[in-house]
Amino acid sequence: MANQKQIKFGAALHGVGGNVSGWRHPEVEADASVNFELYKKWLQIAEEGKLDFIFIADGLYINEKSIPHFLNRFEPIALLSALASQSRNIGLVGTLSTTYSEPFNVARQFGTIDKISGGRAGWNIVTSPLEGTSSNFNNKEHPEHDLRYEIAAEYLEVTRGLWDSWEDDAFVRDKETGVFFDPAKLHALNHEGRFFSVKGPLNIARSPQGQPVIFQAGSSEVGKNFASKEADAIFTGHETIEEAVRFYNDIKERAASFGRSPDDVLVFPGIGPIVGETEEEAERKYREVAELVTIEKALDHLGRFFEHHDFSRYPLDEPFPDIGDLGKNSFQSGTDKIKADAKANNWTLREVALRAATRRSEFIGTPTQVADLIQQWFEGGAADGFILFEAVPRGLEDFVRLVVPILRERGLFRTEYESGTLRGNLGLPIPENRYTQARAEAAQPTAN
Amino acid sequence: MANQKQIKFGAALHGVGGNVSGWRHPEVEADASVNFELYKKWLQIAEEGKLDFIFIADGLYINEKSIPHFLNRFEPIALLSALASQSRNIGLVGTLSTTYSEPFNVARQFGTIDKISGGRAGWNIVTSPLEGTSSNFNNKEHPEHDLRYEIAAEYLEVTRGLWDSWEDDAFVRDKETGVFFDPAKLHALNHEGRFFSVKGPLNIARSPQGQPVIFQAGSSEVGKNFASKEADAIFTGHETIEEAVRFYNDIKERAASFGRSPDDVLVFPGIGPIVGETEEEAERKYREVAELVTIEKALDHLGRFFEHHDFSRYPLDEPFPDIGDLGKNSFQSGTDKIKADAKANNWTLREVALRAATRRSEFIGTPTQVADLIQQWFEGGAADGFILFEAVPRGLEDFVRLVVPILRERGLFRTEYESGTLRGNLGLPIPENRYTQARAEAAQPTAN
Repeated sequence: MANQKQIKFGAALHGVGGNVSGWRHPEVEADASVNFELYKKWLQIAEEGKLDFIFIADGLYINEKSIPHFLNRFEPIALLSALASQSRNIGLVGTLSTTYSEPFNVARQFGTIDKISGGRAGWNIVTSPLEGTSSNFNNKEHPEHDLRYEIAAEYLEVTRGLWDSWEDDAFVRDKETGVFFDPAKLHALNHEGRFFSVKGPLNIARSPQGQPVIFQAGSSEVGKNFASKEADAIFTGHETIEEAVRFYNDIKERAASFGRSPDDVLVFPGIGPIVGETEEEAERKYREVAELVTIEKALDHLGRFFEHHDFSRYPLDEPFPDIGDLGKNSFQSGTDKIKADAKANNWTLREVALRAATRRSEFIGTPTQVADLIQQWFEGGAADGFILFEAVPRGLEDFVRLVVPILRERGLFRTEYESGTLRGNLGLPIPENRYTQARAEAAQPTAN
Repeated sequence: MANQKQIKFGAALHGVGGNVSGWRHPEVEADASVNFELYKKWLQIAEEGKLDFIFIADGLYINEKSIPHFLNRFEPIALLSALASQSRNIGLVGTLSTTYSEPFNVARQFGTIDKISGGRAGWNIVTSPLEGTSSNFNNKEHPEHDLRYEIAAEYLEVTRGLWDSWEDDAFVRDKETGVFFDPAKLHALNHEGRFFSVKGPLNIARSPQGQPVIFQAGSSEVGKNFASKEADAIFTGHETIEEAVRFYNDIKERAASFGRSPDDVLVFPGIGPIVGETEEEAERKYREVAELVTIEKALDHLGRFFEHHDFSRYPLDEPFPDIGDLGKNSFQSGTDKIKADAKANNWTLREVALRAATRRSEFIGTPTQVADLIQQWFEGGAADGFILFEAVPRGLEDFVRLVVPILRERGLFRTEYESGTLRGNLGLPIPENRYTQARAEAAQPTAN
């Protein structure tokens, strides 16, 4: 059993949750999104459960129709860093946009979290889907969808280059001779590209995991290419195992076509497990949350994916309205899917909105049923691991307490952390410093 | 004694220190600038001593001649946040540049630290003096000195506006009615200015101290006006009490001329106390550090203030060379002073470089002598408080252990924190939310 491939888990910590009305549940602390003590508690639950990482989502634009969690929440860099000093082994993954930030600053901030945590940082790259975001950033033109990915690719190239500024043995720190560092092992980047000019060097060196782990969630064509070419881990979402397997194979093939080992790109479907002592209890837990959602809130929630479109102007019980290309430039793959599903099933606007706001997780049932399903997805080639969302109050706690022990018994999940770094626990290679590598290659006698 | 005005203290945590060769001292851990355990230890020493805040300096540009601490250090936002979750009462002040960042991101990051810490964040506004910085940020034109301050003023206006996005009682969170917030208490900023367009609202609400404390260190004419108009606390540096008193009075007068109470602008000279059981021991401690500095390192250190000018090309033992306006656009007041002092004293380049790199603190001697001097500056109207730099290894520890108890005995320093917020401990007012204030003013019957 020891060498059996094991499932990886991340826990999305999400304040009052992604559900539009979940905060109204009696067991939810309504200020959870700005309650650091709760974040600490969740971190501890996840780390005691030996999960691989916690995950912090983010966004840079709100209006009065945004869901409660988005309105008032912690910024990911500051939150992750505060959590870094409260933990020892668990990975710390956070979202940051390549469209509205500076690579030099972001490289330093993730570099610092990586260093403070001893090599446990991960960066979930997003490109900021919402056009309104630009109004918070000098009305700089919001780049269209595909261009956002081109910017992201060059941004990541710059960031990775900056992270390699110092070779791992650059700091000599010889008090006798007064040599603090070896200048041959300090490297300016001198990047001059289409979108960025960044000279470097960065003023922080690498952590024990070399560079932070790169997460990405693109699922459009352009997004999947970017993710399978550049990311260490891909975050996705599927309603059926068949769909998930197709996505998984697609990503692994794309990765191979870019010359990468498919094992170096981990695929993480997001799931919201709902666990009860009995099936009925699990169903009751689901219903308790779903029934809190009013149709008004569901329409607001739906609207956000379509650039905060106002759906309240359409009749509720007629087929989903024709809204043209709306959504294409924001959440492209997600909105395409909503439109296609609505059309295929002839759903009304009310049905579409309520389904989106109260989606019933596939991963619902007794602990054994949920563990079985997870095993089935994992062994069926649908996932290398999962990111857990709290679909119901105490969802993470229930999962760690009830499902994790079953998976552990089956040899599918660790009993102890293998490593102090996130790369170590995820089984990802540590990227060698590019300059160290180049020097090693230059020193090797060539074959011919 | 209870109501006696008391001295405020901040502790600059500075890794291997600001001395070019201090890292070579046997008692310095040479990796201190990236050693989080050490930062935690210093934080604890400062908090156990009931100091008001810790202070993190910063910079966004290095080259191979930068002093050791600058080469490889933690980024302030991530560092402060990691320290926030390790402390309960002490303030957390960090440096961030208004020239090379986005107000929306920075408002969120300081807002988050402020929230996580329960109202203990402070922001030291800098404008990035070094021209080379622009090479790390798309070669955007490095604004000239005075323009940098105009940008900073508008940047701060935007940030403060964003911090007020939510009135303090905006979040109703009524589970029965489903009302999460009162839309009348959410405010978009809609700022359209010369340098920034930022709509808002910000997606995080205010902390118990209302807004983070604003620090500033401008000492040019433009800088002093900005600081005395906008800042809550001013960080400065002087060699004599006379000079410090002049600066203090100047700032307080400028503040009054801007319609502020002089008590709302605190002046903090930076000092590097060197404390010994005897005068001789203190002198020995100073010499141990000063003697580590070579003339080569001293020239590099001096060069940085003059846009990394190469001073090694001039003869060492002739008068300080004429370098024209160099330095004017970076550290304006500092470089003006170096030139003026050199001229007035007819110092050689060697003397100027070594003096700058090994400046002997005025605050040197036995614990009683140092306490006397601090009392003299404080009661003589030269300071509301002091920011402590580690001029010698364990300088902070010695100060807290040996000098603080004397000041406490004299009723000049607290025995317990008065408040859980930084504003509370500094005796600064909590800025009321602008919209709440406007509503209160509108509701009042007018006098006529």
